[in-house]
Amino acid sequence: MSAKRSPARRPHTAADSPAAAEAKVSRLAVRKVLIDTYHENVAYLHRQCPFYRAEGFTALSKIEVRSNGKSILATINVVDDAQLVGEHDLGLSLGAFKQLGVDAGALVEVSQAETPGSMRALHRKLAGERLQLEDFKAIVSDIAAHRYSKIELTAFVVACNRDELDREEVSHLTQAMIGVGRRLNWDGRLVVDKHCIGGLPGNRTSMLVVPIVAAHGMLCPKTSSRAITSPAGTADTMEVLAEVELPLDTLQAIVQKHNACLAWGGTASLSPADDVLISVERPLSMDSAGQMVASILSKKVAAGSSHLVLDIPIGPTAKVRSMPDAQRLRRLFEYVARHLNLSIDVVITDGRQPIGYGVGPVLEARDVMRVLQNDPLAPNDLRQKSLRLAGRLIECDPDVRGGDGFAIARDILDSGRALRKMNDLIEAQGSHHFDYKNPALGELSFDVCAKESGVVIGIDNLQIARIAGLAGAPKIQSAGIDLLHKLGDTVQRGDVLYRVYASYTSDLEFARRSANRSSGYQIGQTSQIPQAYVEF
Amino acid sequence: MSAKRSPARRPHTAADSPAAAEAKVSRLAVRKVLIDTYHENVAYLHRQCPFYRAEGFTALSKIEVRSNGKSILATINVVDDAQLVGEHDLGLSLGAFKQLGVDAGALVEVSQAETPGSMRALHRKLAGERLQLEDFKAIVSDIAAHRYSKIELTAFVVACNRDELDREEVSHLTQAMIGVGRRLNWDGRLVVDKHCIGGLPGNRTSMLVVPIVAAHGMLCPKTSSRAITSPAGTADTMEVLAEVELPLDTLQAIVQKHNACLAWGGTASLSPADDVLISVERPLSMDSAGQMVASILSKKVAAGSSHLVLDIPIGPTAKVRSMPDAQRLRRLFEYVARHLNLSIDVVITDGRQPIGYGVGPVLEARDVMRVLQNDPLAPNDLRQKSLRLAGRLIECDPDVRGGDGFAIARDILDSGRALRKMNDLIEAQGSHHFDYKNPALGELSFDVCAKESGVVIGIDNLQIARIAGLAGAPKIQSAGIDLLHKLGDTVQRGDVLYRVYASYTSDLEFARRSANRSSGYQIGQTSQIPQAYVEF
Repeated sequence: MSAKRSPARRPHTAADSPAAAEAKVSRLAVRKVLIDTYHENVAYLHRQCPFYRAEGFTALSKIEVRSNGKSILATINVVDDAQLVGEHDLGLSLGAFKQLGVDAGALVEVSQAETPGSMRALHRKLAGERLQLEDFKAIVSDIAAHRYSKIELTAFVVACNRDELDREEVSHLTQAMIGVGRRLNWDGRLVVDKHCIGGLPGNRTSMLVVPIVAAHGMLCPKTSSRAITSPAGTADTMEVLAEVELPLDTLQAIVQKHNACLAWGGTASLSPADDVLISVERPLSMDSAGQMVASILSKKVAAGSSHLVLDIPIGPTAKVRSMPDAQRLRRLFEYVARHLNLSIDVVITDGRQPIGYGVGPVLEARDVMRVLQNDPLAPNDLRQKSLRLAGRLIECDPDVRGGDGFAIARDILDSGRALRKMNDLIEAQGSHHFDYKNPALGELSFDVCAKESGVVIGIDNLQIARIAGLAGAPKIQSAGIDLLHKLGDTVQRGDVLYRVYASYTSDLEFARRSANRSSGYQIGQTSQIPQAYVEF
Repeated sequence: MSAKRSPARRPHTAADSPAAAEAKVSRLAVRKVLIDTYHENVAYLHRQCPFYRAEGFTALSKIEVRSNGKSILATINVVDDAQLVGEHDLGLSLGAFKQLGVDAGALVEVSQAETPGSMRALHRKLAGERLQLEDFKAIVSDIAAHRYSKIELTAFVVACNRDELDREEVSHLTQAMIGVGRRLNWDGRLVVDKHCIGGLPGNRTSMLVVPIVAAHGMLCPKTSSRAITSPAGTADTMEVLAEVELPLDTLQAIVQKHNACLAWGGTASLSPADDVLISVERPLSMDSAGQMVASILSKKVAAGSSHLVLDIPIGPTAKVRSMPDAQRLRRLFEYVARHLNLSIDVVITDGRQPIGYGVGPVLEARDVMRVLQNDPLAPNDLRQKSLRLAGRLIECDPDVRGGDGFAIARDILDSGRALRKMNDLIEAQGSHHFDYKNPALGELSFDVCAKESGVVIGIDNLQIARIAGLAGAPKIQSAGIDLLHKLGDTVQRGDVLYRVYASYTSDLEFARRSANRSSGYQIGQTSQIPQAYVEF
């Protein structure tokens, strides 16, 4: 046939006969392309590569690459530069190259990828059907094996958004996520953990609860996430004080010796599918109830927890904004936890404003250390909340009488035993030598001042998080916000409400513009302060 | 601060002070990176690039690139190879480079991208809210300007899936899509068009309807899509006969002279947002009612159509499977068309099996030419359906009496006037010299035979399309399937049901494996043939 084709399509002439092409297709020499495409495997193929031409691919088609019994899928990017990849080479992005684990130059087998086996299940979900445990296992296992493109990942995340998953499906998804990761085993001991669903800047209670309950003698191997959409996660803040990316063996040894750890969960391979899903949830700022429950509980079970206290803050700008919503979410957590044999205690807390004063890794680490040091400048809300959460966990101890937990926790904190435990953990994980009395803050700053006199009646968690994020947190550890006034404080016009720290002019200007549009603070009369809804 | 950071994060030392970094960030030299990333703009930045380091980006962050008043957004891929991009260079993928339209080496301004303005509207849709016209305008305009990443595009497509858009939102989306493209103007003349929602292999009625109604003297500037998930679109099949990628001016000149054209819609810039959306809909095989209506009607209005006949086939394996579903879809088309001042005539047709014999560009072009040539081998279903559709359009002519359309259409076809008109269009667009009696089919083939004797009671449109696609259609024009038997035919065990053509062994084997799993044919008794639902 002699029909003229558009340039992007392969010309089909007698010269490249099928047989000739066929002989060339099966093996290509691997080349590491030094491009970091994040969680998506990309294969770079030269436009003249006989394999590419023979198979008649389009851009974004997927191929399967096999070597030594290992196999990966990768999305094609077509290259016109022989310097980058030659016609008989297969270029792999950094992550893909690492996954395949062969030497550069090795010959590998390449073929059109058959659609990942779970794609039919994904399409059924997209069509609105309920999925079974087997479906979720297939999907999650393909995701953990990096067999989904970003487009497919996003489709899964959005199709499971809002009310699309019923509670049994959430339970299935959670079990599937546990199934693809490693699972820690603590020889049947009671293992406690706490977790907050997030959304409150500065809410670093884990860094206080963990040393307190560990000092009480309970096992608390805490793995935390980095910030997804917030200015700091527990892992980001702990990283100011100590190493948090530790091999699983090291972690286990630390826990055996000190009863606890405060590490980043990602490296521990406890929930590899979650790690991949976050790569699309983060840019979309998505966090649906079903995925939240599956993500949190799968990691807790994988970490070997037997008892969990879960914190759901309510407030006008928190993730959960009404008591009925909080109760619905609590029931979902309880339903799934029951099916996983995990004992759960869901508390509903005051989420009307950030916790503590600091927002951003260094500032939050300062607040945590002030509480541990019983420093007069310690934020009382962070101290009280941490003591109550620790008290609840301590009451999981069969030797503790119900109601005694809070007093025991307070005694551990006030006596300095919690601080000593924290210092042990910092030393064991690898200290970063942080001076909490003189923290290194961003060299640039500006103040946001009250435009009128009155009482602080509202602090917008989202806007405070946004400004801190624009200022550079959590990536720039020293960036963030120091809140000088909280709900109920009386301020005069011109008083500094908060100070924003940054390390780069462009960050500072982004943050300043946002703060000028909206400071996040509302000034009014005491009677206008919204009511706190708490079940704790 | 001296805290140790993980390698992927930027070390923050006194050496790269903010001021020093700031001075270097604003301008980088553009370099064209010869990588085809399809519809996603990718910016390649060296890991040591001062701009990248100063801004503290992560992989997949977006940047804005400005030059000469033009601005594009691009997703960052981090590069560790100075050969590919130097530390002071900005590498742009092929598409991004072309969009920016500057010379290699030019200094351009680079900054962190502010979130596309429509992202709040997208999040409201993800949260299940109804959107207004202004929201859709903002989203569609960002999409058409390539300001959405693949992740964001997918989120939009999935969030508008199924029943997520009500009919007013579909109308808003359609208007927004019309708003961002060019719009053809035919000086108030009556402009007719036909369109099928797709899903039936071989359904190439446009290539017959257009020459018939144009021969009648009606204006029919037909722009069609390429295949999205099917083995051939009208544009793919027409491309066997003639050039289909024509500049808008050329198209308009052809229509002025011949009353018609049969071109690909993409190049005509009539619906640029649709073109981008398809890049994620295609890999997901998604085609929701709302997006289908918006995509089809926006292109019709942009092409200047005043009257449209729309074909909705129903069948067990068609896109629409029941009369109530077809009627619901018809009402949606009618509602949106009414708001666009487009006169629409929705017909519901027999979609129980492919139309004609051939599936794939060359085989379908052969069928079309057989009908135009009044060849005894012409498929009668294709001929009859095309005549009825053409008849409906001819009755839009105020000088034609209701009920006369079919006879007029038949006369135009039987007399050879339709063929002459088609030949005029082929010459005008640029002939590809196709010999319909001796079409160049794929050099490799295999037959699928009846496993038992009986009557053909079912042909699975989806499986036939899948096998033809695996065989290489539409990318390999000569690949596809020739159906030798249709519904109701009596066959003996061992009779050839259809023949599969391919040009490459690997394609042939993929197709053969799929046909072995399921031939797509069901053999049984005449009484088992499903009923046809038709409102035509």
